[in-house]
Amino acid sequence: MNDAKIRLYVDAPLGQGQTVPLNRDQAHYLFGVMRQAVGGAVLLFNGRDGEWRADITQAGKRSGELACVAQTKPLQMPPDLWLMFAPIKKARTDFIVEKAAEMGAARILPVMTEFTNAGRIQRDRLQAHAVEAAEQCGGTYVPEVTEAQKLGRLLDGWDPVRRILFCDEALAGDAPDLPTETGPWAILIGPEGGFSDAERKRLRGLDFAHPIALGPRILRADTAAVAAMTVWQRTLGDWG
Amino acid sequence: MNDAKIRLYVDAPLGQGQTVPLNRDQAHYLFGVMRQAVGGAVLLFNGRDGEWRADITQAGKRSGELACVAQTKPLQMPPDLWLMFAPIKKARTDFIVEKAAEMGAARILPVMTEFTNAGRIQRDRLQAHAVEAAEQCGGTYVPEVTEAQKLGRLLDGWDPVRRILFCDEALAGDAPDLPTETGPWAILIGPEGGFSDAERKRLRGLDFAHPIALGPRILRADTAAVAAMTVWQRTLGDWG
Repeated sequence: MNDAKIRLYVDAPLGQGQTVPLNRDQAHYLFGVMRQAVGGAVLLFNGRDGEWRADITQAGKRSGELACVAQTKPLQMPPDLWLMFAPIKKARTDFIVEKAAEMGAARILPVMTEFTNAGRIQRDRLQAHAVEAAEQCGGTYVPEVTEAQKLGRLLDGWDPVRRILFCDEALAGDAPDLPTETGPWAILIGPEGGFSDAERKRLRGLDFAHPIALGPRILRADTAAVAAMTVWQRTLGDWG
Repeated sequence: MNDAKIRLYVDAPLGQGQTVPLNRDQAHYLFGVMRQAVGGAVLLFNGRDGEWRADITQAGKRSGELACVAQTKPLQMPPDLWLMFAPIKKARTDFIVEKAAEMGAARILPVMTEFTNAGRIQRDRLQAHAVEAAEQCGGTYVPEVTEAQKLGRLLDGWDPVRRILFCDEALAGDAPDLPTETGPWAILIGPEGGFSDAERKRLRGLDFAHPIALGPRILRADTAAVAAMTVWQRTLGDWG
């Protein structure tokens, strides 16, 4: 019964007896690319109702319909961890979003720092990467990718209940212990070239911000994002 | 004096009074792409003699020469950690090699598992990625990328002194503690689709092999490589 291999993110509600319409892109993917047909089984999730096995009941070139059969996973929310990062080159920015979704970030926030050297962020494209990563990694939740914001303005309105773990390259080799406070957290990855002196001074002065060192070598931003999320997930997250 | 920003890997010996010839590619990069000229300063490393500041003494279209001025870093060997991984798509294989060099692997070994679905490995191209990552991350060492080997044959001749940390997807959510034995280690990342039952059985039966779980979501191989190296470096490596 559980031979369904394809996982698809959909917007529609999922539940016993629910039918799920497919849009043009989904129909093309499922029937054109993946060669599925009426009677085939697919796993669906929408970020709210867990994962459902669904049977294909209609298959067309530009549309289709599925019927939910049984829930295969409950909704598993990731821990309340945000990933804030300074966008870099396109391919690496895409990677960071993909990695954040795989590693179980609940929200992904592109932030513009003083040394950020990146053009406009295409939020929709990044969101699509997060969806694809969730489809691939077996997650039932899709982290929201926000519009890019200036780091300074984000910190101005910051709720201090959410602690910040920031990767401080100036600390290399001198690693403070990871704090043990549970609750909401955000990881902040700096841009290539690091934080400015003013940014580092401000971050170091915030009671709710904690520096972390990631070894003696300088990590690229995408590497640092995965490494910092690993440290956090093992200590405070859902890797226990 | 230490305004040199460009880091270049060279083959030649480095030391007080040493002159370093540049090959055609290096001359093109340094003088054509980076617009350096006689009198400019560059940081050199060769994986053996640490990092040296060198002055440009000759600059041509197809050749050039540098003179070592002063050592700026001693040779810093990474811990004795190998990364073994099953090659995947080209871009992600390149990423794994880059990440392994950044994260401080001493040796990078592409291994063919039963479910590995990749063509021939271009060892030279992967080695060039490791060199580029070392140039970028400030390391003074370049991990060797070996030719691809079959996992089974590699295990047949394995020296049990080197422990293996293997990422066992079947363990998701049930994480054994990381062993605390120091000494030589190798991390083994499986292919997309995981290890075969026979491979997993063999690995589980090896006294020197220890499984590790990397959270409740399925990580892509490149993500798993960074996450596993993070866990190892913080516990047993040089991130202390």
